[in-house]
Amino acid sequence: MQLPSTLLENAVAEFAKLPGIGKKTALRLVLHLLKKEVEEVQHFGETVAKMRRDIRFCNRCHNISDGDICATCANTMRNQKLICVVENIRDVIAIESTQQYNGIYHVLGGIISPLDGVGPDQLNIESLVNRIGKEGTEELLFALNPTIQGDTTIYYIQKKIQHLPCRVTTIARGIAFGGELEFADEMTLARSIANRLPVQQYVK
Amino acid sequence: MQLPSTLLENAVAEFAKLPGIGKKTALRLVLHLLKKEVEEVQHFGETVAKMRRDIRFCNRCHNISDGDICATCANTMRNQKLICVVENIRDVIAIESTQQYNGIYHVLGGIISPLDGVGPDQLNIESLVNRIGKEGTEELLFALNPTIQGDTTIYYIQKKIQHLPCRVTTIARGIAFGGELEFADEMTLARSIANRLPVQQYVK
Repeated sequence: MQLPSTLLENAVAEFAKLPGIGKKTALRLVLHLLKKEVEEVQHFGETVAKMRRDIRFCNRCHNISDGDICATCANTMRNQKLICVVENIRDVIAIESTQQYNGIYHVLGGIISPLDGVGPDQLNIESLVNRIGKEGTEELLFALNPTIQGDTTIYYIQKKIQHLPCRVTTIARGIAFGGELEFADEMTLARSIANRLPVQQYVK
Repeated sequence: MQLPSTLLENAVAEFAKLPGIGKKTALRLVLHLLKKEVEEVQHFGETVAKMRRDIRFCNRCHNISDGDICATCANTMRNQKLICVVENIRDVIAIESTQQYNGIYHVLGGIISPLDGVGPDQLNIESLVNRIGKEGTEELLFALNPTIQGDTTIYYIQKKIQHLPCRVTTIARGIAFGGELEFADEMTLARSIANRLPVQQYVK
């Protein structure tokens, strides 16, 4: 695709670097911006650059924050003795949108994955262990993806904190709501039978 | 979706204004940028803003250009007596990527569409008529979408230049290459029969 202007070509190349955006989509986005006012496009560019430049991470849970401590950690109405461990910021957003969780978080920034060269030292594990000791955390709830790497991470952290009086739990694995039994994989189905619940607990 | 930072929220809102990008995709793009270096994201924002601020339009054909006259118009190897009339810049890019057209262009900036409040005065029609008279154009090739509005635009411009010694043509309408006869609409099929070609011309 030959473009009639290098300015256009540069802008298209920048958009095409984003995940899931090819050169054709990038061109569509750039031509859309071209129809907008100069100030509007200026504002777009500045907002994005400012976001990256000024954004902070919570000193306590490593979630995105506007200040030193994020709004979730600063909220005294939440259970500060219950920490949910997640892989990344997206998971925090997903859990928050259920509006069912009332504890606080700890963002690891990834999971242990030796094949990808990610070891425990690159993750926010040390700060988690320190937090649990200092804050007298009562429960650590792991909400990691159910993969080998996720399970390895849980196992590693559990070993690190076994001397502390903190209960360790993980979110339930099982058949998804609205899922079909016959299409579930054997592992999930087997685990959901092994970890069966009394019906009273289920419908509560 | 509740986001943990207003900076993040603003950036997501800006991306979500783009066509075909919803709030979830916008969040994915912003979180991707968040993993990049500050300078890289700064460069992204500046490139896009600079594109809108500095881009020029060719004085002659209204195509995008880096200077007063676009590269196509300035190219003396192209047939300067053959003007292809298109609706927008995207059409120029589409035709250029066929590498089969050797004339120059005229970008109308839209088509006549009274229902959308677009009349001839909002389009680059006057400059087209002036060009044809001044440049001694020999052929005007319409490459507009085959809609009522497209046909109206062709009819209007043709009336305006009927006193000039310029041949007026339009790109062929017919069954698309690789298309299936049985699924073609009646209008297209009827026209492709009415405008049938000698086989010699077709395979040439």
